[in-house]
Amino acid sequence: MFTAIDHVGIAVADLEAAVEHHRRILGREPEHREVVASQGVEEVLFSVGEGFVQLLGALGPDTPVGRFLERRGPGLHHLAYRVDDLVGALERLRAAGVPLIDEAPRPGSRGTRIAFVHPRGMGGVLVELVQGPGHGPPGAGEGRP
Amino acid sequence: MFTAIDHVGIAVADLEAAVEHHRRILGREPEHREVVASQGVEEVLFSVGEGFVQLLGALGPDTPVGRFLERRGPGLHHLAYRVDDLVGALERLRAAGVPLIDEAPRPGSRGTRIAFVHPRGMGGVLVELVQGPGHGPPGAGEGRP
Repeated sequence: MFTAIDHVGIAVADLEAAVEHHRRILGREPEHREVVASQGVEEVLFSVGEGFVQLLGALGPDTPVGRFLERRGPGLHHLAYRVDDLVGALERLRAAGVPLIDEAPRPGSRGTRIAFVHPRGMGGVLVELVQGPGHGPPGAGEGRP
Repeated sequence: MFTAIDHVGIAVADLEAAVEHHRRILGREPEHREVVASQGVEEVLFSVGEGFVQLLGALGPDTPVGRFLERRGPGLHHLAYRVDDLVGALERLRAAGVPLIDEAPRPGSRGTRIAFVHPRGMGGVLVELVQGPGHGPPGAGEGRP
């Protein structure tokens, strides 16, 4: 059900500088860039093996990543697992008593569906679940084209 | 050169409780458990796709993870990239002006060789490089059996 580390989200103070730095260190071009206005971020993904490193720039100080930067400074922000059945994964977490930030899937970047899990139920780690486009059992794709 | 996200290290306050929680959430048994006395940690690895989630329990308060827990509480601790040429990767980072914690590879868990990179040069992220046993170009395996 949890099939991969989809990505590791890193909050950065200067997105362009971080992109340039990772381009140099990783020796590759970014895979994807997207403004996700609903989350108040601009994200840049670098492909690493089957997953991604996701650089997160805040669209303003009063956004989740903006507040994170203010409170803790730049650094590791969240851990995202790839799942093949997001609805089922949320049910499993709920049954285990883990508090959810998103009770139901919502659209993420790259045409994915995502849900965030509360750090309180995951040992202080903000966890995201990601179901890729084109995955999941029949009927689990509600809300997608 | 950076071939995968090898693992994501999570500092936990209660290792046994965290293992039980991840066993339930991930629906699988841990892959590996090891006390790494030189780093002052006991680690438990859960396999997720090609990488691992690494739960880190401190062997005492005056250890790197113990001090991290005291300062920041439990949560995301470091990001480890798998590399196929650790010596070469360290040279690349050094050339890019990135400060290293380990100037040369040292033994890690699971028979790996590892090196830590200073968060100051990686946007506040403590980065580890991991070269698996049996990887790397001929002659790069110095220090291994």
